[in-house]
Amino acid sequence: MPLPIFAALQVTLCICCRLDALSCVIMMLMSWISATRNCKQLFNTIKCMSAVRYTHSHPVKMDLSGIYPPITTPFDESENIDWISLKSNMEKWNTIPFRGYVVQGSNGEYVYMTVKERLELVAGVKGMMAEGKLLIAGSGCESTSATVQMTKDMADAGADAALVITPSFYKSGMTDEAMFAHFTRVADTSAIPIILYSVPSNTGIDLSIDVIVRLSSHPNIIGLKDSGGDISKLGAVVHKTQNNTFQVLAGSASFLYPAYHIGCVGGVCALANVLGQECCDLELLFKLKRYDEAEKLQKKLIIPNLDVTRRFGVPGLKQAMDWLGYIGGASRLPLLPLTQNQQDVLRKDFKKEGFLE
Amino acid sequence: MPLPIFAALQVTLCICCRLDALSCVIMMLMSWISATRNCKQLFNTIKCMSAVRYTHSHPVKMDLSGIYPPITTPFDESENIDWISLKSNMEKWNTIPFRGYVVQGSNGEYVYMTVKERLELVAGVKGMMAEGKLLIAGSGCESTSATVQMTKDMADAGADAALVITPSFYKSGMTDEAMFAHFTRVADTSAIPIILYSVPSNTGIDLSIDVIVRLSSHPNIIGLKDSGGDISKLGAVVHKTQNNTFQVLAGSASFLYPAYHIGCVGGVCALANVLGQECCDLELLFKLKRYDEAEKLQKKLIIPNLDVTRRFGVPGLKQAMDWLGYIGGASRLPLLPLTQNQQDVLRKDFKKEGFLE
Amino acid sequence: MPLPIFAALQVTLCICCRLDALSCVIMMLMSWISATRNCKQLFNTIKCMSAVRYTHSHPVKMDLSGIYPPITTPFDESENIDWISLKSNMEKWNTIPFRGYVVQGSNGEYVYMTVKERLELVAGVKGMMAEGKLLIAGSGCESTSATVQMTKDMADAGADAALVITPSFYKSGMTDEAMFAHFTRVADTSAIPIILYSVPSNTGIDLSIDVIVRLSSHPNIIGLKDSGGDISKLGAVVHKTQNNTFQVLAGSASFLYPAYHIGCVGGVCALANVLGQECCDLELLFKLKRYDEAEKLQKKLIIPNLDVTRRFGVPGLKQAMDWLGYIGGASRLPLLPLTQNQQDVLRKDFKKEGFLE
Amino acid sequence: MPLPIFAALQVTLCICCRLDALSCVIMMLMSWISATRNCKQLFNTIKCMSAVRYTHSHPVKMDLSGIYPPITTPFDESENIDWISLKSNMEKWNTIPFRGYVVQGSNGEYVYMTVKERLELVAGVKGMMAEGKLLIAGSGCESTSATVQMTKDMADAGADAALVITPSFYKSGMTDEAMFAHFTRVADTSAIPIILYSVPSNTGIDLSIDVIVRLSSHPNIIGLKDSGGDISKLGAVVHKTQNNTFQVLAGSASFLYPAYHIGCVGGVCALANVLGQECCDLELLFKLKRYDEAEKLQKKLIIPNLDVTRRFGVPGLKQAMDWLGYIGGASRLPLLPLTQNQQDVLRKDFKKEGFLE
Repeated sequence: MPLPIFAALQVTLCICCRLDALSCVIMMLMSWISATRNCKQLFNTIKCMSAVRYTHSHPVKMDLSGIYPPITTPFDESENIDWISLKSNMEKWNTIPFRGYVVQGSNGEYVYMTVKERLELVAGVKGMMAEGKLLIAGSGCESTSATVQMTKDMADAGADAALVITPSFYKSGMTDEAMFAHFTRVADTSAIPIILYSVPSNTGIDLSIDVIVRLSSHPNIIGLKDSGGDISKLGAVVHKTQNNTFQVLAGSASFLYPAYHIGCVGGVCALANVLGQECCDLELLFKLKRYDEAEKLQKKLIIPNLDVTRRFGVPGLKQAMDWLGYIGGASRLPLLPLTQNQQDVLRKDFKKEGFLE
Repeated sequence: MPLPIFAALQVTLCICCRLDALSCVIMMLMSWISATRNCKQLFNTIKCMSAVRYTHSHPVKMDLSGIYPPITTPFDESENIDWISLKSNMEKWNTIPFRGYVVQGSNGEYVYMTVKERLELVAGVKGMMAEGKLLIAGSGCESTSATVQMTKDMADAGADAALVITPSFYKSGMTDEAMFAHFTRVADTSAIPIILYSVPSNTGIDLSIDVIVRLSSHPNIIGLKDSGGDISKLGAVVHKTQNNTFQVLAGSASFLYPAYHIGCVGGVCALANVLGQECCDLELLFKLKRYDEAEKLQKKLIIPNLDVTRRFGVPGLKQAMDWLGYIGGASRLPLLPLTQNQQDVLRKDFKKEGFLE
Repeated sequence: MPLPIFAALQVTLCICCRLDALSCVIMMLMSWISATRNCKQLFNTIKCMSAVRYTHSHPVKMDLSGIYPPITTPFDESENIDWISLKSNMEKWNTIPFRGYVVQGSNGEYVYMTVKERLELVAGVKGMMAEGKLLIAGSGCESTSATVQMTKDMADAGADAALVITPSFYKSGMTDEAMFAHFTRVADTSAIPIILYSVPSNTGIDLSIDVIVRLSSHPNIIGLKDSGGDISKLGAVVHKTQNNTFQVLAGSASFLYPAYHIGCVGGVCALANVLGQECCDLELLFKLKRYDEAEKLQKKLIIPNLDVTRRFGVPGLKQAMDWLGYIGGASRLPLLPLTQNQQDVLRKDFKKEGFLE
Repeated sequence: MPLPIFAALQVTLCICCRLDALSCVIMMLMSWISATRNCKQLFNTIKCMSAVRYTHSHPVKMDLSGIYPPITTPFDESENIDWISLKSNMEKWNTIPFRGYVVQGSNGEYVYMTVKERLELVAGVKGMMAEGKLLIAGSGCESTSATVQMTKDMADAGADAALVITPSFYKSGMTDEAMFAHFTRVADTSAIPIILYSVPSNTGIDLSIDVIVRLSSHPNIIGLKDSGGDISKLGAVVHKTQNNTFQVLAGSASFLYPAYHIGCVGGVCALANVLGQECCDLELLFKLKRYDEAEKLQKKLIIPNLDVTRRFGVPGLKQAMDWLGYIGGASRLPLLPLTQNQQDVLRKDFKKEGFLE
């Protein structure tokens, strides 16, 4: 096809799709190159390089869009943090196009750490991290004052943003009002932006749509990580916070692809510890609108993901890491390592989808 | 193909699909280019437009793809079935491009009906239904033998397929084995195909992925309606049953759009009783790959949908019907009509999204 | 009163109460002393012995105090009601000092019966029942109108009182207001007294203290069967309804003895199908204030009771019946018979407490 | 009545009731005095004085029988521990016949304390405590190693026994095996005896009968505090651990009296913070076998107890303390103080039972 005709067609298409001028030009050029040279690999590489980050209608304080592994913490035989193994994992993860790392999330066994360890881990990862990536630190505690302090300390330790889990012990007291007051206080006093974190399978508390929407207008609350798996809730939150530059992250690789389709900007995915490239591929396929391939990949990830989250938890995730080139190792007690039977199930499920031989 | 003939065809298609004029012209041009130059990428765009029905890799026994309202049952002041109001509703629904109707699902208050009424309703709707639509009848009962009998009777009454809810009373006895035996027996003895139905918010039973997958290879079990809202489960089921011509229907309009993106073929949506055209629009937008518009519409539907399902249930749905040109009326007791406060909330939520003035 | 006449009376009483000889002699002596000397403390001991029935401070419409088996329904190989086996069971049960029978409760598999069968069973049991016993019929349905009709029909079929389970399908609609209206309507229209029935493990609905208290003042609502096992709730209900001649029945043998101590008047106990005499012994021991023995017996009953309720359900109960001289047989599908493993556990637990050899 | 005849009668009674010789003699004398002098008050005082502590068939390592308030922690306006108010409360509590104190249980807001504060509180209470009472310290943490350390530190700080809550964050990992390993490790390494603590309303974890029974044979695990309210479970545990000198404490005043009747030896009751004397009265009435009075008192305590636990939690408890002569004050955030409406309900309920004017 001659370039002028092609270009005219493309312009029309771009107007149709409401792309901005720059993207339009890039697309045209690439399409032409592609059409002319039929060089698929080059095409993709360029496309991926130019895949502009998710653009909000309002300027965002910090662009969260992308994939994050909530990294696990390796321990030695005495249950001490194994910094060498962590470094080894980090070096591998640094080669994957993650947007950043979540340190001391649920999968980091934060509830089994001392305050000192939590801070050391954040500082440690900061030092091991490839440039340009975000460091999100889990800073939630049960009390508001401890969370305020921990969030400050996390900022000092180098965190770019804080992921704050819902307090949950006194369940009947964790009303919308209590949640609103808690997160507001934390956000008011924090030097770094706050990301809300709802994970009902661990806490028994599902942060309500109403309170999320109210909190979304706080200038220092920039997003939500939701691991509940209720895609309607994610959609409702995206919809009701659209004027607030509020960014929603899927809390699991099981529903990452559909979450993108209702407006989530990325995911914090346990599975990314072990299948990080695949999670990033899914993101890319979505951005490239290669939806059939994305759907296919999404489906392959669901069962392995359920295995390393709901079914076998952190010990399952660490076991899979051991098999796939990372250093998982044991969890701190009371979490027990997988039994032989559980290992067999896990291996079978990873094999079935081609992630293990 | 000569351009004029091609154009005529395309115009017809575009009218069919209710595209605006500009899109129509662009599509025509691109199609022509594609047809002439054999440019695969553009060709695909067209293909999707004309893809009137979900095409399975295997031939399906009955193509379920599309939108179904699980129709409500209007009652008169004495709680008798109000056939005239039902007919009035059906006439309106018949003008909407539904794939068919679900009669005597949860929203039909089937648990409040006698056996006789359940059958009469199916027969009655059969007579009121526009041609070419499917009639799916809820035939589930607590016992296996009653379900077998009811399914047979539903077939005789004119149902094209039977939607069979999980039995649920003796919760600890409703194991995977019990479920497998139950549905197998029902499917073995039924003249019409069986669709599994899992609705944990009513039954407390969530049909497991494992048992669904096992049942999917039964030649007379053709699909699943799942109202649980766990999109990962839907994806896993689609993935694991891909060789069985098994069709999955989203059980709610809240997650219809993301459900399409992981392979669901349609939805049985309470909301379609009252916003039927909008649900069908969502389906069409998905099929036309107009994903931005689909996402936008999906988001507008979530809160109204939650209101007429989880939050206010059948009385909420019927109230909304009264406002939007249908005849909802009261539910049978013990379901109470909405209080004034509840009505205000419902009205506000429908107004906010532009569905009421 | 002269000693010989007094003694003769006492002997009769003791035989009645199945006391051993020594207790009988001691009691006689003490009673005589008491009678002669007007010694209040000893007198009370006697009073309790002769206190055949729970005495309310207000006259009760129908004295419910005592033990009731919620009888199982035996089926033949074709799942038809096996009347001969039922008669055989009834003959054995008639020799046990039950206060009466609950027919078509949860353990009677009422949800697996047609309306006709439910009524036939009540009429049938009426004909097989020893004189002087109460016949309580489960008449609950999902809709209010069906429950009203069924309750009337149960009265016609010979029921002395109706046990009305909470409707439960549309869980979010089953508010206190809905429950209040439902039970009020049923009680208003019933010729026989109504007993409320809350069994959250099957229905997912726990009738609230508030609504029970409100309903307790209805002249035709005479009591509550509560199977939830929350002894605080039972105590609160007894306490708050003390002015209403409202009678509370424990819904399980697992907590029968402590339930007596907070004011319950008896129990409807699945376990009484198979260990009926033991349940009645527990009642008697409580009434005789032989609390140490009662406590001991209560404890022996807990695990067997959990096995035939929560753990293995109706099929477990029927299996135990088969072992202990009754005819249990299979349940209707979808309830499956116990696996060999489950049978082994059940047998071991019954053996351990000495109920099987 | 002449003493010899009376004595003969009493001996028979005592043999009947299997009392030991000493109790028998005491009872005889007291009965005689009572009968002769009709001096009820003296009688009771003596009886209460001689009320021997619960006697186990096996020697117990530490006799836990009695009532314990799980004491609240007062804070000043800056949320610092208010030692003066604590001392004031302790002085009042010291005049009540508690068996001891639980420090840093759920009602002590332990999850809102630093490690240092938790230890200081135990040491502080040790210094304020009346002689002869037991100091039980809540030492549970999420990780096994932290719990081991905390338990050691609690022992050093002066605790007589440690109350160890189930870890709960990774719910799917908290299997029976994990629980068994956790508590075994803690008990193995502790210088003071361990009391298991199950409180599902806060943790979402209900320690199973099986694992409790297995743990009960550990020489350093002496008992269980169970707040679940499932009286059948308490009975089953008492029954199955009867050979292990294992002591069960009711975890709430709502079911304290029935719990005694199935073999519990006392209670850790939030309500005892505010109605301590009443809780001890209930214990005494049970021991004196004045069951009618005990039942009556138990019933009066249920609703106030539900208010300060399930319904309004620690803030409710502290509010009631403020009204009844103690210093409750605010809880640490995120727990909010009661709204005016909630206060009204609480006050009404306490008034209704005569605990407030």
